[in-house]
Amino acid sequence: MNIKITGTGSYIPANIETNEDFHNHEFLNSDGSAINAPNPVIVKKFKAITGIDERRYAKDHLNTSDIASFAAEKAIDDAKISREDLDYIIVAHNYGDVRHDSIQSDTVPSIASRVKHLLRIKNPKCVGYDLLFGCPGWIEGVIHANAFIKAGIAKKCLVIGAETLSRVIDPHDRDSMIYSDGAGAVIVESTNEESGIIAHESATFALDEAHFIFFGETNNQEVKDNRRYIKMYGRKIYEFALTNVPLAMKCCLDKSGINIKQVKKILIHQANEKMDEAIVKRFYELYNMQMPNGIMPMSIGKLGNSSVATVPTLYNMILKGELENQEINKGDIIIFASVGAGMNINAIVYKH
Amino acid sequence: MNIKITGTGSYIPANIETNEDFHNHEFLNSDGSAINAPNPVIVKKFKAITGIDERRYAKDHLNTSDIASFAAEKAIDDAKISREDLDYIIVAHNYGDVRHDSIQSDTVPSIASRVKHLLRIKNPKCVGYDLLFGCPGWIEGVIHANAFIKAGIAKKCLVIGAETLSRVIDPHDRDSMIYSDGAGAVIVESTNEESGIIAHESATFALDEAHFIFFGETNNQEVKDNRRYIKMYGRKIYEFALTNVPLAMKCCLDKSGINIKQVKKILIHQANEKMDEAIVKRFYELYNMQMPNGIMPMSIGKLGNSSVATVPTLYNMILKGELENQEINKGDIIIFASVGAGMNINAIVYKH
Repeated sequence: MNIKITGTGSYIPANIETNEDFHNHEFLNSDGSAINAPNPVIVKKFKAITGIDERRYAKDHLNTSDIASFAAEKAIDDAKISREDLDYIIVAHNYGDVRHDSIQSDTVPSIASRVKHLLRIKNPKCVGYDLLFGCPGWIEGVIHANAFIKAGIAKKCLVIGAETLSRVIDPHDRDSMIYSDGAGAVIVESTNEESGIIAHESATFALDEAHFIFFGETNNQEVKDNRRYIKMYGRKIYEFALTNVPLAMKCCLDKSGINIKQVKKILIHQANEKMDEAIVKRFYELYNMQMPNGIMPMSIGKLGNSSVATVPTLYNMILKGELENQEINKGDIIIFASVGAGMNINAIVYKH
Repeated sequence: MNIKITGTGSYIPANIETNEDFHNHEFLNSDGSAINAPNPVIVKKFKAITGIDERRYAKDHLNTSDIASFAAEKAIDDAKISREDLDYIIVAHNYGDVRHDSIQSDTVPSIASRVKHLLRIKNPKCVGYDLLFGCPGWIEGVIHANAFIKAGIAKKCLVIGAETLSRVIDPHDRDSMIYSDGAGAVIVESTNEESGIIAHESATFALDEAHFIFFGETNNQEVKDNRRYIKMYGRKIYEFALTNVPLAMKCCLDKSGINIKQVKKILIHQANEKMDEAIVKRFYELYNMQMPNGIMPMSIGKLGNSSVATVPTLYNMILKGELENQEINKGDIIIFASVGAGMNINAIVYKH
């Protein structure tokens, strides 16, 4: 028995927020001091590092659970299964439903229960829960589904990554330009085919790294409202990721028994273009190889960093022929990899 | 191979909030209208239904992750394992860290990462994630641990239920008297002993029931601050629980192959004394039996409803001889059962 992804779907919010839309922001350093550059220069530098031109924001009336259910509908249709046959709905997110007019995260009931409600699934044996694991949450959800199927307690699982980061960003923080909204979903099933999950690897670095990504106050020290936003120590994350993600990917690939030359694509969390490239380059260096051209499909330029949603969305785009010059064919070996708040890292070696 | 709980621990916050402490509250109906009774009468009626005399609130400087780590320390000591040998830290909660001076839930990094940080665990292969599944979250976490061990991806798991509901209650809602803070933790391991998890059952009812427990505005309609609190439709929950929880428990017990007469204790989520009694009575009625005396240990009178923490805390109290006239002995068959937001229900038949 193998365990594979039999359907994919995603929801890309309609509202496009361009880099130019940030030209009127008052960006400040984290200590509240002014940044000695005009906004167009700040934005240009941001684009050079992250590769981001545009990002997507969900419309005001939509929440994480809504866009999660849109992606789920498509994955269910794509897998050609009955939604009533699902054993699990696993929703990876980090902030729950944050309404556009609220600063409170709403996680009761769970986003999975809301998705199940929106999908009109009746079967009570379809168990829904939320998984919080930073940006690597969606990959971790697939690892959970794999474990439940192996343990004999599930046959078909819906695994969703959905987030509306636009609701938790500090307008005075340059990093706010990174974040985006989105949702991606897959169906994971047991199969008799010679394909699916070959190996997986997860890790949590929390001794020194737990608070590299955190919930903190605005950079504008004149604001005294106690409200907190997504925050990060970018330099520390960059160094951490460059050291540990290539090693975790190597550990996973070596466990799989697959030769690196067989790897056709690496679908890495769309965190930051320069960082992602540096990670994959170093991964190949561990095998004394140069990074092959086109190995690393990227969607960050047009879609930004939508946390848990980037990897399933990217995978779905490639399979649906929506990413130029990128394709995945039957039998291709793929590596899914992610890094994010926790700090968590994970990877899956997968045969399409 | 069997899978069993090898250590337990809990943290019961020091601050006692008595029923009398609510005498100065202005309680209102959910439509904002006044309640035609003086507070001592309201509180007495509340006590008669729920069985609650007192509840515990965490001190201001402590958050969910702190009390979770206190319970975890005790469970690790009790199991006599090295914390560095843990493969998973699974933390069930529903609101994350809600600081006493904030209305925002803080879930980045995950509570599991914070607990791992507080426990000073170095091993990155010890993977921490948060599980949101309403009040049944801790039992569901044990079911996850069971699956991971069965699937061969874990040997030792720390499963915690922790919540600070005192931070999300509406002072104008009588239901606010139900909620309490607390944390319970266990170590789940594979064993060659003839004991452990025999059967488990989980369900999510979301078609009509998803929003029976929700995040809603204060009963005081003069307050226009948009702030939301834990809210519930008590009557609907009561009817739902009475119909579905006994059936889920029966389904689990029948799956286990154990005769009901062998069941020594039922450790049910401490939601509400009258509701819990009605559930267990109806469970026995499904077998044409009367509920045996003392089958259902209760801690709700002194500890209130601390959501995910009630079952592990109750279990730990009994094992440590801290609950009068209650004991669990080697070989005893126990049923763990819970119901809560989602609406989720689960049960485990367990040989101690």
